[in-house]
Amino acid sequence: MPSKEEITSWFKSLQDSICASLEKEDGKGKFTEDNWTREEGGGGRTRIIQHGNVIEKGGVLFSAVHGPVPEFLTRESNLNTNKDLTFYAAGVSIVIHPSNPMVPIIHMNVRYFEMSNGVFWFGGGIDLTPHYIVEEDAKFFHNSLKEACDKHDRSFYPHFKKWADDYFYIPHRKETRGVGGIFFDKLTATDAITKHARFDFIKEIGNTFAPVYTSLMNRNKTKTFSEKNKQWQLLRRGRYVEFNLVYDKGTKFGLETNGRTESILMSLPETAGWLYNFLPDKGSDEESTLLLLKKGINWV
Amino acid sequence: MPSKEEITSWFKSLQDSICASLEKEDGKGKFTEDNWTREEGGGGRTRIIQHGNVIEKGGVLFSAVHGPVPEFLTRESNLNTNKDLTFYAAGVSIVIHPSNPMVPIIHMNVRYFEMSNGVFWFGGGIDLTPHYIVEEDAKFFHNSLKEACDKHDRSFYPHFKKWADDYFYIPHRKETRGVGGIFFDKLTATDAITKHARFDFIKEIGNTFAPVYTSLMNRNKTKTFSEKNKQWQLLRRGRYVEFNLVYDKGTKFGLETNGRTESILMSLPETAGWLYNFLPDKGSDEESTLLLLKKGINWV
Repeated sequence: MPSKEEITSWFKSLQDSICASLEKEDGKGKFTEDNWTREEGGGGRTRIIQHGNVIEKGGVLFSAVHGPVPEFLTRESNLNTNKDLTFYAAGVSIVIHPSNPMVPIIHMNVRYFEMSNGVFWFGGGIDLTPHYIVEEDAKFFHNSLKEACDKHDRSFYPHFKKWADDYFYIPHRKETRGVGGIFFDKLTATDAITKHARFDFIKEIGNTFAPVYTSLMNRNKTKTFSEKNKQWQLLRRGRYVEFNLVYDKGTKFGLETNGRTESILMSLPETAGWLYNFLPDKGSDEESTLLLLKKGINWV
Repeated sequence: MPSKEEITSWFKSLQDSICASLEKEDGKGKFTEDNWTREEGGGGRTRIIQHGNVIEKGGVLFSAVHGPVPEFLTRESNLNTNKDLTFYAAGVSIVIHPSNPMVPIIHMNVRYFEMSNGVFWFGGGIDLTPHYIVEEDAKFFHNSLKEACDKHDRSFYPHFKKWADDYFYIPHRKETRGVGGIFFDKLTATDAITKHARFDFIKEIGNTFAPVYTSLMNRNKTKTFSEKNKQWQLLRRGRYVEFNLVYDKGTKFGLETNGRTESILMSLPETAGWLYNFLPDKGSDEESTLLLLKKGINWV
């Protein structure tokens, strides 16, 4: 059964390999690293890339924290309040904002959580937010995720795809954040599925990130764009900010539990914008994208 | 005793007079108006100004809505769940984002709330967010508010100033949003204070807005600024976005109760920005401002 040390060490190696792949595809930007510690226990390795050829601002974060189980979790899990109960959580979180509006924004998180009472689970998600939706790219992205999921369980992709549609949704805009992806949580071991098998699935998803996103960078990074495209990018980034600050559970949890603000908010773009009641022109590329920001689209 | 009709009609006239004053001082920008209705009852008159000489994006909003009392309010007020209980709420909300970083952002809200059981109250607030704090301006702003408060009750300004320090605060940044102002809520009638007197106080605060802010526009609008100043403005606007989306109760309430999104989020600037772990240079104007974004500063 993989130990927390083994899982943690793998997350670190994932951070390393993803940073290397992104630097290579970017061709100019280099990650800088900030190591931080958490007063209550543990810490992280925050790696940030800014002003590359392709990536305007992005982060690939590793963290591993531990301490007494927060009160909201004992409530949520119907646990007796037990002051001796401790938790350990480790994971990798990524958000990449490209400068060229034709290159999509991407996010991934893979995480492991365990408590001193023996309860553990894995969780994660990956979703794509194109400023302009390219059907071929969305299909490639979803097919890659489906392929990764199918190696483990053919029920995963449909289940986790729907979960992502519901999670990466902005109710006050009645829009999805992008073309979705997969989202999953509380994957624990059962009589039929070992912890080892769960960890293998997490590795599969983690390892899918770099080849898929560098391919999407590569396909789109040399595309030309206009001032109008940049304006639209600002507005789409505004929506990204709205989702992250109003709805994203990781952000909320981090800010409420006195997490490291600069690491949590690395997900925000270098610039974002809001225009009052902006409506794209009929028949424009912006309108086509908006019409595809809906739940339940089958991309595979 | 002023009726809801009388109070509502005054709020509308306040919106009119503030829009006229702002247009005059701006010299170019004109408000456009959107009238909207709320399915559950009532509606609003949203007035937006964009791309003026001084104001880049701003809104002066009137609304008057009514319906069954929302569940969270019966809980908060320890009322018995009573399906027949209805509410009526009216008010004016303002946020102005100037283009010149030397002109401060301003916000004001004045509101009236009543329920069919006879309970009523007034609330509101006004606060200033300079990108660069000018001590003389902050003193002028606070002295103007103190003067308005003192006409009604000499305990108001110290009490409401502290309330604003606590309310307009960004815990995850350990920064106030700006130089504060006043904030107050649930001002109802007592044996000693009539509803009429409360309404007079609300009028006083509402009427303070235009002369104070147009003066601040006037003092600063012709100041020159650099690219560095514009960059800093973007980051300060980023903080404004963080406050409004994460903490502001009006925004939260509006988004959660299916309010009109474009009216609620008119408070967001046309552009905002985030840089990872940005720290101003030692001894710079940006650092001086940051050092003053603290609670408890006495500006009068």
